[in-house]
Formats: sequence, structure tokens, C-alpha cells
Amino acid sequence: MPINNLTIKLPKNEIPRVWYNVLPDLPEPLPPYLTPGNVPVEPQALAAIFPPALIEQELSTKRHFDIPEPVVEALSRWRPTPLTRAVGLEKALGVRSMIFYKNESVSPSGSHKSNTAMAQAHFNKIAGIRRLATETGAGQWGTALAIAGQYFNLDVRVFMVRVSLQQKPYRKTIMNLMGAEVLSSPSTVTNAGREAIKNDPDTLGTLGLAISEAVEEAASRSDTNYSLGSVLNHVLLHQTVIGQEIKKQLDIAGVKPDYLIACHGGGSNFGGMAVPFVPDVLSGQKINLIAAEPESCPSLSKGKYGHDHGDVAGLTPLLPMYSLGKDFQPPAIHAGGLRYHGASPIVSSLVKSGIVVPETVGAYELFQYAKIFSRTEFVIPAPESAHALAVTCRKALELEKEANPGVLVFVLSGHGLLDLSAYEDYLSEQPEKE
Amino acid sequence: MPINNLTIKLPKNEIPRVWYNVLPDLPEPLPPYLTPGNVPVEPQALAAIFPPALIEQELSTKRHFDIPEPVVEALSRWRPTPLTRAVGLEKALGVRSMIFYKNESVSPSGSHKSNTAMAQAHFNKIAGIRRLATETGAGQWGTALAIAGQYFNLDVRVFMVRVSLQQKPYRKTIMNLMGAEVLSSPSTVTNAGREAIKNDPDTLGTLGLAISEAVEEAASRSDTNYSLGSVLNHVLLHQTVIGQEIKKQLDIAGVKPDYLIACHGGGSNFGGMAVPFVPDVLSGQKINLIAAEPESCPSLSKGKYGHDHGDVAGLTPLLPMYSLGKDFQPPAIHAGGLRYHGASPIVSSLVKSGIVVPETVGAYELFQYAKIFSRTEFVIPAPESAHALAVTCRKALELEKEANPGVLVFVLSGHGLLDLSAYEDYLSEQPEKE
Repeated sequence: MPINNLTIKLPKNEIPRVWYNVLPDLPEPLPPYLTPGNVPVEPQALAAIFPPALIEQELSTKRHFDIPEPVVEALSRWRPTPLTRAVGLEKALGVRSMIFYKNESVSPSGSHKSNTAMAQAHFNKIAGIRRLATETGAGQWGTALAIAGQYFNLDVRVFMVRVSLQQKPYRKTIMNLMGAEVLSSPSTVTNAGREAIKNDPDTLGTLGLAISEAVEEAASRSDTNYSLGSVLNHVLLHQTVIGQEIKKQLDIAGVKPDYLIACHGGGSNFGGMAVPFVPDVLSGQKINLIAAEPESCPSLSKGKYGHDHGDVAGLTPLLPMYSLGKDFQPPAIHAGGLRYHGASPIVSSLVKSGIVVPETVGAYELFQYAKIFSRTEFVIPAPESAHALAVTCRKALELEKEANPGVLVFVLSGHGLLDLSAYEDYLSEQPEKE
Repeated sequence: MPINNLTIKLPKNEIPRVWYNVLPDLPEPLPPYLTPGNVPVEPQALAAIFPPALIEQELSTKRHFDIPEPVVEALSRWRPTPLTRAVGLEKALGVRSMIFYKNESVSPSGSHKSNTAMAQAHFNKIAGIRRLATETGAGQWGTALAIAGQYFNLDVRVFMVRVSLQQKPYRKTIMNLMGAEVLSSPSTVTNAGREAIKNDPDTLGTLGLAISEAVEEAASRSDTNYSLGSVLNHVLLHQTVIGQEIKKQLDIAGVKPDYLIACHGGGSNFGGMAVPFVPDVLSGQKINLIAAEPESCPSLSKGKYGHDHGDVAGLTPLLPMYSLGKDFQPPAIHAGGLRYHGASPIVSSLVKSGIVVPETVGAYELFQYAKIFSRTEFVIPAPESAHALAVTCRKALELEKEANPGVLVFVLSGHGLLDLSAYEDYLSEQPEKE
């Protein structure tokens, strides 16, 4: 097999020029978003918080959207991202399978979130918006939007989940450094925040609650729109650059994937990787698409499929998705980006139709593999991304029982340089020899 | 001018294949290293702590050394590094000059230190050494050697300057994650450390003292060698890949540099950038080579030229260099990598002969420019690297008085993702609008 280089890079001119919309190719049409009165949401109802282009992308069944030139230019600062064969990891595990990782950590924010942040900032800018409000869990999304706001000259206010702010104070520093304002959520500047504090002054906060705060703020100010880092169709659409590039890179490597694995919180990095391969699966190619989620917040594995709000206060439409219930309070795990009660409607639909399979991972297992990966690939995975890594390693080890091992690809959605307190906790329980 | 891309990348096969040794080209021969009795040090005296190949590189006047294939392979994981035109920074400053930065932060350790760490680990490995002892200030060098030790299968013990360990605890986490053992310096495992604690239990520690500890340990154990991250000739030799690549990249851009600027602590990133251009300067090309150092630790600007020890305990030979005196205790500035009393003998010689000019930078000025750079280039500079950035901005602004602006190149020696506490201190004194 013609793999001479460990890393498959694409030239700049191979940056995808279109986003792929999976909606027309889903086995079952996506059920509509509903109002609390169970009436399908009208596009204009979303206009209070989203610009027209993003509403169109959210609801359209057009198969492709051209990526506007200013967004291509922004993406070209770090894309195409490398696909690397983790030869050191394969050796350390002692497996015959090939393991590749798509390295989204090379973006300015250190994660895949920049792919959609740049797009959303652009579409808001051309719609005359001056200011964006958003939420962030682990801080990767808030960082990405702070940078995109700076790049496209928009002010950004970030509601950051309280427990994540405590765990990762330097995420706030980065967002401030990039010019964004950061408030701890629940905050006292919104009704949703004040209500939550009244109910439980010691609440850890949740992503669902921070969404309520940002939506409330955007809906009440005409110069401000809301920006969401995951879950919605238009966010997954922007992330399809990941899967499109993986396809080209695997073609260059001359291999077909048996497993494509990404972590799943709201679903954007998983969806961005997976949906460009859905037509291949539907046409009979055997590809295992696995969504890795935390044992302690297993929305796809243990959630109920139906309509539920995307936020705690019930300000968002009811989305057709797997959900643990909007009031579910996940424990304070390190992978703050995966602490979400719901799931992407698109990914939910793919799980429902059996095209995507979820698997859960516990904290000990993921840090164990993250340590091996750090010592063989010299990139420290974000705890979120380590969920995908752990499932990949697990599968590669299982495949050793088979006559023919496989080709496994996972998305390293972000680096863990701002998650070292999580690693410190793990290492202090698993001390090195002195 | 044919600059269509902001970033000039070189293909993998353009990784330098030789290291350039400036010793035969220095205007004045480098004075010998001396013993405390003022006798030139014999090569075999260094054999207790260094492998033969590194001793040869330290003392030889051979102009080029081939880079061994395993080291090229290691470097090819991240080299050649990009040279990027900082168009956003130029605009923010309102200057007509072109500003380029050589981005060494893309290495596995996040800094230029990996260039020499890989080389030193290789030469120790082939000499049969099993274990390396070293010191680290800001932690960049310790991280780089931890990774190189992991890569070449060597154990690593790092003596980390106490004040840096307190300022940047997560540097220890990374080193541990990469398999290295980290001790706070002064430690109780060496005579030098115990002596320092006895003299001042509250000492902040210094790089010079941490060097004493690592040298003492290496000299007293046959399986262990010492590894130094800067100052010495062989370290600068390994770093010449930086300057060699810059030359090629500027040729591709079709420009000649007027200013080449890097920060100077022990001198390795400055030397690595500058020395490949020394023959050009000697043949009459007008290039300003500027070493940026902290106001509070101005070894080149305010130090005395002569022979001095590289460490506090006087275990190293007397080196011909500018020095503030081996007992100089710099204040606890954020740029821990620049808290060194001495300077590279090679850079000292170049300063003495007027080829290199030092300039000092204060903390306020450097964070001010680091903020602008972060918001225009979306890379957060290490505080050390921000010294080079600040001098570059200062020069670009000065050049506005001239009819013809210039071409300025600086080395972004490392990223600041593990220095966010320093940025937090700066931002909290310079709060953003709320």
C-alpha cells in the first residue's frame, strides 16, 4: 500500500468549496422543529436570532451549498487539516489494524469549532449584525467564536458554564485576549440565569442553561444574534469539510475506512465527519459510523427519541432528537464539551435508522488511552476527543480476533493544552515512577 | 512582489540536511572554555556529562555537520516550519514595512527547543546512555526533552526552577504526561540544591542553579548524561535549521531581510536564526541582527564580557560570554526562559564584534504587542517570543519615518498556551470593556 508518509496533507487548493447537506439523503425525512404548541416552526420565527442565510441552511433540502469566498479564505488559514497514520499508537497497542486521525486541533482555536465559527460570523456580518451572544461548555466553542468575531469584526459575549469556568479558567483568559466578553452561567443578566440561581445558588450550570441565557439575550436585542456551536443542521453542514477532506485523504492513502469514529456532545464534529459518508453507506459500502459519548451523559445510548427543547428554559424550538431530558444535570466530568442532554437531530435520525451506532466511554479508559496517544503521537487530546480515541483503540483491539484487521479513522477534534488540570487529576491517581 | 500566499511553506524534502557551524566564520576565534584554574578545558573533561558526538560539535571548527537520518526523520514530524507574513499585524500597526514570523510553535513541544532535544537524545542514545538529566526555566526545554526522551526511549529527569513551577504548574503535568520526572529546583537530591536551600529557604531558584543540579547528577551517575537546552555551541548548531529555512523562504518570497530579530535568554533560538546569515553580513549585506532581551535580565546589554561559569555552583567550565554574574538573581518575570545570567559564547562574540546588537524590552510593552498579535494572527506568543515581537513592532514603527520601509523577520519561538496566567495578570491590569 502506497503510504510513504505518515501524514497525508492536501494542498491549499483542495479545501472543500461546498458544504454537503445530508437532509435530502436521510433514509427518513427529518421531522419538523415544533413550537411548544406542537406547531411546526416557521422560518421567520428564527429570524430574531439567526441571519437569513443560516435559516436557509438549517431548513433547506438542497444537497450542496457553495462556501462563500471570505469563508474559504478564513478556513485556508489552517485547512486542509492533516490526516495522520498513528503508527506509534498501533505499535503501542500491538494491533495490525491501521489507525488514522484527522487532526482538527491545528485550527486557531485548537478545535474543529473554528470551521463553523468563521462561517457563522461571516453570515451574521453580511446581515448587518454587530454582536453575537453564545454559550460555551468546555470553552472550545467560545474561543472559536471569539476569534471569528475578531476576524470578521463582531463583538462577542460568551455565557460559559460555571463548572467549566472553574475547571478551566484559562479558557476565559484566551477569550478575553481575543476580545470577547465572558460571563459565568448562570449569570444575573438574564431571566433564565436569575431563575436558575434562585432555584439552586450552587448549581454547576449546564450547556442547556447557558444556551437559554444566550438565546434570551439575542432575542431581546436587535443588534445581537445568537450563535450555536453544535446540534443544529447548519452547524453540521459547516463541519462537513472534515469528512470531505478525510475522503480525499483516504483515497490518496489508497484505503477504505472500516470504522469512522468521533466523539458526540451536540453532534457537530461527529456529524461533520460522518455525513459525507452516508451516501456511501446507503449505496452498500460497509462502514461502521460510531459516536463516542461519555458514560455519564449518554444522550444517544440511553436518551429517548422524541421532541425536546435544546435548552433548559425552553426558549429553543422542540427538536426531534435523542434526549436525556432538558433538565438532566450531568456530573462535572472533564469533557465539558460533551455535557449536553440532547443530540443533533441529524445524528439522532441516523442513529434511529441504524446507520450510526453510539458507544459510551468511562473517564478512566479515556485518560488511559490519551496517555498512550500523547506518548506516541506527541499531541495531547482534549478529553472530548479522547472519547473517540478510546473507542478506536477498543475496536482495534477487538479486531485482533479477526483474520483481517481493519482501517480505523477517528477525529482528534481538539488538543488538550487547556485541559491539563484534567490530566493532572488522572496522573495524580496514576503516579509515574519517581 | 510575488507574495500570493501569506504563508510560505517548504516541502518536506527541503528540511535542512546539514547543521551550519559558525565557529570557522567568526571574525575573532572563540576563546577556549577554561577550568577554574584558567586552563583550557580538554575535550575528555566533558565526557562525564556529554556523548562524544556532542563534544565534537561543541569544539569543532568544521563548517557543516550532516544531520543523521533518525534526527531528520524526527524533525520531519513538524519541519519545515512555516514563515508567515503578518499582514494583520502590519495593518494594526499601520506600517508599510513587511513583517514575517518564523513559527517554531508548531513543534510537538510548542517551541523551537524540540530541534535540539531530538538531536541530543539521538546522540546520547547511540552512545549507550539510558537517562538524561536537565534543567528547565519556563518549561519549554523540559517539555521538549521529555518528548525527545520518549521518542528515543530514554528516561528523563528535569530540575525545574521553583518560581516557574509555581507560575506554570501545567508544564510539569505535560512533562509527566510525556513520561519525564520533574523536581522543583532547588531540590534536596543534590549538594547544590541542598546548599541553596540552606542559604535561602525561600529562594525563587534560577536557571543557573538548576543547571548545577542537573550537571551534578549527570556527573555522578554513569548511566546518565546532562542535556542543556541553550547557551552551548552544539545547541546553537542544531538550531541553525531555523535560519537555513528562513533563508530559503525569503528567497521564495523574493525579498531580502533588513531586520532579523529573536529573543535571547541563553541564545539558542536567536543563534539558530542569526548565524546562518553571518556569512552574508560579513560579505557586506546590510542585515540588522537584533537580540531582544528582558529589561530585568539584560545579559548582553548590561553584562560584562569575560569568562564566567554557566551555573551557580561553578560546576560548568568558565565560558567566554557576557554575564551579569553567576549569582545574579533575576526577578520573577513571566518570561522564565529568559531568566539567565549569561549568554551564548557565540552570540556574545557576535555582539562583541558588532554584528549583533541587543535591545531590551519591558513587560508592559511586550504584552501590549502580544495582545495585538493574538488578535490579528490568532496565535498567542510565549512571553519569551513576545520580546522579539515587541522589538519588531518598535522597529517597524520607527521605519515609518524613512522613505523606504523594510522587511522584518522575527522568530515566534513558542506559543503561550501554557503562559495564560501571565496574560491573565496583564489583562486584569488592562481590563477589556464590559
